[in-house]
Amino acid sequence: MSIVLGPNQYGKAENRVVRIYRDTPRHEIRDVNVSTSLRGDFSAAHLTGDQAAVLPTDTQKNTCYAYAKEKGVGAIEDYALALARHFVEDVAPVRGARIEVDEYFWDRIEVDGRPHDHSFVRRGQEIRTTVVTVDDDREWVVSGLKDLVVLKSTGSEFRGFLTDRYTTLRETTDRIMATSLVARWRYRDTGIDWDATYAGIRAVLLARFAEVHSLALQQTLWEMGKAVLERFDAVAEIKFSAPNKHHFLVDLSPFKVDNPGEVFHADDRPYGLIQATVARDDAEDPGLAWYTVPAFA
Amino acid sequence: MSIVLGPNQYGKAENRVVRIYRDTPRHEIRDVNVSTSLRGDFSAAHLTGDQAAVLPTDTQKNTCYAYAKEKGVGAIEDYALALARHFVEDVAPVRGARIEVDEYFWDRIEVDGRPHDHSFVRRGQEIRTTVVTVDDDREWVVSGLKDLVVLKSTGSEFRGFLTDRYTTLRETTDRIMATSLVARWRYRDTGIDWDATYAGIRAVLLARFAEVHSLALQQTLWEMGKAVLERFDAVAEIKFSAPNKHHFLVDLSPFKVDNPGEVFHADDRPYGLIQATVARDDAEDPGLAWYTVPAFA
Amino acid sequence: MSIVLGPNQYGKAENRVVRIYRDTPRHEIRDVNVSTSLRGDFSAAHLTGDQAAVLPTDTQKNTCYAYAKEKGVGAIEDYALALARHFVEDVAPVRGARIEVDEYFWDRIEVDGRPHDHSFVRRGQEIRTTVVTVDDDREWVVSGLKDLVVLKSTGSEFRGFLTDRYTTLRETTDRIMATSLVARWRYRDTGIDWDATYAGIRAVLLARFAEVHSLALQQTLWEMGKAVLERFDAVAEIKFSAPNKHHFLVDLSPFKVDNPGEVFHADDRPYGLIQATVARDDAEDPGLAWYTVPAFA
Amino acid sequence: MSIVLGPNQYGKAENRVVRIYRDTPRHEIRDVNVSTSLRGDFSAAHLTGDQAAVLPTDTQKNTCYAYAKEKGVGAIEDYALALARHFVEDVAPVRGARIEVDEYFWDRIEVDGRPHDHSFVRRGQEIRTTVVTVDDDREWVVSGLKDLVVLKSTGSEFRGFLTDRYTTLRETTDRIMATSLVARWRYRDTGIDWDATYAGIRAVLLARFAEVHSLALQQTLWEMGKAVLERFDAVAEIKFSAPNKHHFLVDLSPFKVDNPGEVFHADDRPYGLIQATVARDDAEDPGLAWYTVPAFA
Repeated sequence: MSIVLGPNQYGKAENRVVRIYRDTPRHEIRDVNVSTSLRGDFSAAHLTGDQAAVLPTDTQKNTCYAYAKEKGVGAIEDYALALARHFVEDVAPVRGARIEVDEYFWDRIEVDGRPHDHSFVRRGQEIRTTVVTVDDDREWVVSGLKDLVVLKSTGSEFRGFLTDRYTTLRETTDRIMATSLVARWRYRDTGIDWDATYAGIRAVLLARFAEVHSLALQQTLWEMGKAVLERFDAVAEIKFSAPNKHHFLVDLSPFKVDNPGEVFHADDRPYGLIQATVARDDAEDPGLAWYTVPAFA
Repeated sequence: MSIVLGPNQYGKAENRVVRIYRDTPRHEIRDVNVSTSLRGDFSAAHLTGDQAAVLPTDTQKNTCYAYAKEKGVGAIEDYALALARHFVEDVAPVRGARIEVDEYFWDRIEVDGRPHDHSFVRRGQEIRTTVVTVDDDREWVVSGLKDLVVLKSTGSEFRGFLTDRYTTLRETTDRIMATSLVARWRYRDTGIDWDATYAGIRAVLLARFAEVHSLALQQTLWEMGKAVLERFDAVAEIKFSAPNKHHFLVDLSPFKVDNPGEVFHADDRPYGLIQATVARDDAEDPGLAWYTVPAFA
Repeated sequence: MSIVLGPNQYGKAENRVVRIYRDTPRHEIRDVNVSTSLRGDFSAAHLTGDQAAVLPTDTQKNTCYAYAKEKGVGAIEDYALALARHFVEDVAPVRGARIEVDEYFWDRIEVDGRPHDHSFVRRGQEIRTTVVTVDDDREWVVSGLKDLVVLKSTGSEFRGFLTDRYTTLRETTDRIMATSLVARWRYRDTGIDWDATYAGIRAVLLARFAEVHSLALQQTLWEMGKAVLERFDAVAEIKFSAPNKHHFLVDLSPFKVDNPGEVFHADDRPYGLIQATVARDDAEDPGLAWYTVPAFA
Repeated sequence: MSIVLGPNQYGKAENRVVRIYRDTPRHEIRDVNVSTSLRGDFSAAHLTGDQAAVLPTDTQKNTCYAYAKEKGVGAIEDYALALARHFVEDVAPVRGARIEVDEYFWDRIEVDGRPHDHSFVRRGQEIRTTVVTVDDDREWVVSGLKDLVVLKSTGSEFRGFLTDRYTTLRETTDRIMATSLVARWRYRDTGIDWDATYAGIRAVLLARFAEVHSLALQQTLWEMGKAVLERFDAVAEIKFSAPNKHHFLVDLSPFKVDNPGEVFHADDRPYGLIQATVARDDAEDPGLAWYTVPAFA
């Protein structure tokens, strides 16, 4: 038996790049948070401290900012692909790169009903995400969104469930269902109209959440994922992580006050957590390469 | 010399009340975070532990939820006034109450271009706030907003400033100006159309931020506040707290890349912090009662 | 009636200064977060955008770092006083300065039972704080601590309280009492052994929390404050803000399991919030100058 | 091609269980945050909304609290194993369970030099963690710690690294090295003295961090991991995720002030992120089962 170096990677996390396009008086803004991770044979750096094969994380940071000008920041998938390919192709010891980009959205401020040329207000709502992995000559793009907080004030049941000696929950045919949605979908390839597809998938997710009469959050997620796969051939599979943000009906009967589904307490913890994958049955298996990174976290 | 009990208050903080109006199929939602603080002669509770004059914070919580049904949650100012007046008028030892309400906004989910009846998505952007103080027979309402993140990609200068031996900053005639705005305005009285006034003030703040060619964040805040006072007679004074969220132009010259105001690093800390009050010169002085609470924090 | 500029201040918030003393192989570390605010006649900066009287916040930042070397970072009160006096005395337009410093503590890592010379581990527990205000020729020092999380598993009652129609809480003679303590005490003057006094006050606060059989959190805070004033002549008054971090006894009876004060749910929100001042009755009134700053927040 | 349900799991996250042992006047406290996830054939719940096989997350919560009394909360690994085995063995549709427990540490408050019987102060520093996975008849325990913040004020170099056209970093032979360590180690089996092993591994990690003269964070992590594997036969492999919390030497030369490694700016973002695994070469491969869960996040 001996002790060996296992999987490893290193990079610069959370480079906060803001790119302004100002070629005309009507400016555009792309506001992103970029994290890089490089893989390859970095044994010497670990075993003897020899850094000859290590491109500093500071250089990776510089590259993120320089590429924002040299390549531009259009769709985050293109920006991430450009960075990933650069590291793998141009930096000899690097055999794999993982580039993660979060994008924050801005709306134009309206003045007298007209959108302003160079003044913006953060939209809030969801963050758009992508994780691009380049491994030698293979490329995967996993895009998605997070922090999309949605709520239905009716149209949600939960009953007919399994019980045991620790079960005290009562069945309900009408409850609030709310979640802060994380969705990540893997594209089949890289020749995609990223922005249009993002907008389309987001619209489908919201519409299905709204329309499906829910018997459980599991069923809602399944219907949301199925609708995405049915309508977007470019998507191989989609994963959800959805906290069930509990809204408890408050018992007002001690005060002689009726409460027919009107006053709720929004609780913090604990919360249900539902996680599911919807996939095509002929989806090529990418190995678990794009799953493994969070395992480090 | 002896040791005495000074200013004190107690209450229940952050009651997360969600109120659904479901009288028709088209539901309405009000989503608020309510904190109560009661003042009066609570010496015995402190000095001897005698709780005979202390209405439990648990009861204050119950009241927040019960009032959401009994009085409803319309404009947060009305809901807060109802709670404050109740505690002062109906609970004998209580002589003053401070009710703070934050409101989170929701949009209807659009399905095929139509807003859905009972499915919502969190709007993000700003949180609407109010702090209502009732002290015996006086009432103050201080409303506002926070977390309104705005950015101008041009139209902002900073030059002609004072220098000393520690000054290294260079003058600029074109920079990004960004802030996460906190604004709080005190109303002259309580007979106000709260929702319309809120919407109006918000629109003026955004428009002035967009339109003013800024020589400094101080000047922008002043112009924003002045415009509010000019257009809304109901407002006695307005206070701002505005972090200057620095966006530093990245030096790309080591890479032979030009950067004419296009690529920025959005920094976290430190940040400038500009705080200012714009007031009417005949504004009645409320004492510092509505200032003092955060002093406990 | 006209519109006027009211109270205002500006500065650089959250300068993260780390000072290493390395004159001997046994290094010392002071790790602080410094915020500056300057006051004076800055009307022109607001009304016309003229910055001639404005020392940039960037310069204030530089001064914080330079002073960490020129004056050193010993007790945070001395460091803050040096900065405040500098701004008021050396920068002509400045008539008042407020310097806030948070300090994070580090312990030495132990290797084979011996504290290491230059390797440290963050202690966690509380953050030490100070707010120094210099206004023309008057000086106040308000020091304290925050995030000191304490818990008693018994020795706490809550009963005999006032009830009304919204009261459902039951009396208890044995509960968990827990809080994340914020305490701020104002010193009578500036000729103090700051570090020793801090350590002494902290010890008294903890000891009284432990020893007092509590009839309410109000009473515990009073006893803690009284003990500080009795033992430390240098302290004029002390303020507490103490969230009552509720630990609810879990009802295990549906599972035929007894729970005599053993299993609790630590809840997040809402929480009680108790705020109190303990003062000497001959304490000079500093005006509300040291209260007012948080009013901007 | 058809659309299918892929990997899925569900449970109750962040049950905040506090267990007091009060059999003698000297109380003990275990303060944990427990998350459950169940796996099995839950297709019907997703595809048709049929919940007959679904044990509610509310029941899982109840079980966490009930087990805190029935089985007790000793070492978190034992508590997690008891929960995981229960769900897999006693709930028919469940074939796998993943139980994650974070533990917060408390110290006794000292009064006159003596530790108090029932009054505690949160220690801060690190959080102890475990993730127990039971899959049919296989069991894995992955324990660790997080939020252990450590810093060396010297004894750290970074030089001899790879450069390209985007490199501007200068070499250094003396810098601050700081990280907020996450470490997770997989045990070979389940017959372990968990508490003693945790304390031992923590001590080794800290000692190696202190003692190794570092040529890079990678090398320091390798040495820390190697030392753990050499001294603890029970550990099959260990993973690290270590942000390089940059402390930048401040350039004070514009003020004619020298700065020989004494004044630093502790920066927030971006930060380096170094992730590495140290393993035995004969370590049984558990499949990636224990990696996959965070992929949902």
